[in-house]
Amino acid sequence: MRYSLPGGKRLMSTLCIASCEMIGGSQSVAMSMACAIELLVTMAVIQDDLPCLDNDDLRRGKPSNHKVFGEATAILACQALHCLAMQHIAMIKAKNVSPDRLLRAMVEINSAVGSEGIAAGQIMDINSEGKEVSLSELNFIHRHKTGKFIEASIVSGVVIGGGNEEEIERMRNFGKYVGMAYQLWNDIVDVIGSPEMREKTGRDMMRDKATYPKLVGIDGSKKHAKELIAEAKQELAYFDPTRAAPLDHLVNFIVSFGNNN
Amino acid sequence: MRYSLPGGKRLMSTLCIASCEMIGGSQSVAMSMACAIELLVTMAVIQDDLPCLDNDDLRRGKPSNHKVFGEATAILACQALHCLAMQHIAMIKAKNVSPDRLLRAMVEINSAVGSEGIAAGQIMDINSEGKEVSLSELNFIHRHKTGKFIEASIVSGVVIGGGNEEEIERMRNFGKYVGMAYQLWNDIVDVIGSPEMREKTGRDMMRDKATYPKLVGIDGSKKHAKELIAEAKQELAYFDPTRAAPLDHLVNFIVSFGNNN
Repeated sequence: MRYSLPGGKRLMSTLCIASCEMIGGSQSVAMSMACAIELLVTMAVIQDDLPCLDNDDLRRGKPSNHKVFGEATAILACQALHCLAMQHIAMIKAKNVSPDRLLRAMVEINSAVGSEGIAAGQIMDINSEGKEVSLSELNFIHRHKTGKFIEASIVSGVVIGGGNEEEIERMRNFGKYVGMAYQLWNDIVDVIGSPEMREKTGRDMMRDKATYPKLVGIDGSKKHAKELIAEAKQELAYFDPTRAAPLDHLVNFIVSFGNNN
Repeated sequence: MRYSLPGGKRLMSTLCIASCEMIGGSQSVAMSMACAIELLVTMAVIQDDLPCLDNDDLRRGKPSNHKVFGEATAILACQALHCLAMQHIAMIKAKNVSPDRLLRAMVEINSAVGSEGIAAGQIMDINSEGKEVSLSELNFIHRHKTGKFIEASIVSGVVIGGGNEEEIERMRNFGKYVGMAYQLWNDIVDVIGSPEMREKTGRDMMRDKATYPKLVGIDGSKKHAKELIAEAKQELAYFDPTRAAPLDHLVNFIVSFGNNN
């Protein structure tokens, strides 16, 4: 568990903290939720690298978990990281965060990890390997493998930050657009980025996995990413611009490579 | 997920319901927690059967999950069952159950599944296969692989049933003894039971895994199981005998085979 935690981009947790703070929540409250989110991200990447799934030997700049500790330990680490994340959320003690909101955040996050989230995306991903994949199927995979978790990271930040229903729904939409743009960015970087920038060294492309650039080209992918970020920013415009500034910069960062190159 | 759910003994969930009702909680409240517990039990057995763990082809009278759906789907089903269990607990809406108690039950259950529970027991189990295992090591494995989850099933029932701290601690002790007795019973049945009664057709014994009967003999195991049940009943004596009757019968059932044969 400790071996695989360091080295991620911390994008999901940063989005959670920035969303929580924008709504008036304290960083200390957001931090516990953010830690839980990173535990779950680590769970997802250990699992994704397993021989029966993506079979990746490298992750976060070093040998993947099962390469070092074996498959059994890697699988058990995933389970234990999931548990630790849940305990972490359940044990948040802070003024202004009601247990009801913690339970709601728990539902959001688990829904994004389970059979309506990451697990669903993985199943679809496995079933489509080597096959012709349509754009709508690719969208399904990305939405479930990554998009919903990004959305849930943002929404859970707003929920524990004390957001009202209107704010929660706006930020859910914001998260949807950001999630889609993020995946496009990843796919683009996999094709044209430097090795250091690549999440998985272009392996998805090499292995004939479906990617956006393959389906709509690099330029089409960049254009779509920009459109999505514009949509995300429209949702953000509902909030106080000063408070929303960190999120505004974050979403610029997500597509900066796609824009500048 | 649906394939592997049917067919278990439902012992953990029955203990949860009986504990909740003994304390004055309603069956409908206990039922949601009990369902979550069975989702987690199913997760644990799918995982336990994986090739890199126990590599079992049969479970609950039919081919194990990975035999039918493949390893990747089995692993993802585990993850999704865990999520579903958490959502199930978080969404319990009932009079007399505060969100605080749901969060507390969540901590109990996850602690029994993660790095201080099932995952820890599995790691120790893997590391000790083929080696000489002492009685204290065997106790560690059983306590973590099964005992803590039985304890947590009982404690979470008491917690959501509205038990006070004294009642929770008594039932935690009760659960400890029941958990140990249960594992002894399983080991004994594996040696002398009929094939229908055997959980895993004596395979642990065949594979040279540590078991109680191997370390202390059948008679010693039976004697110890009886002692543990007597200890469990002492904790139960604190409660109203009429209300405690279902639990009393349940623990008799757990060691009935060990006693009568």
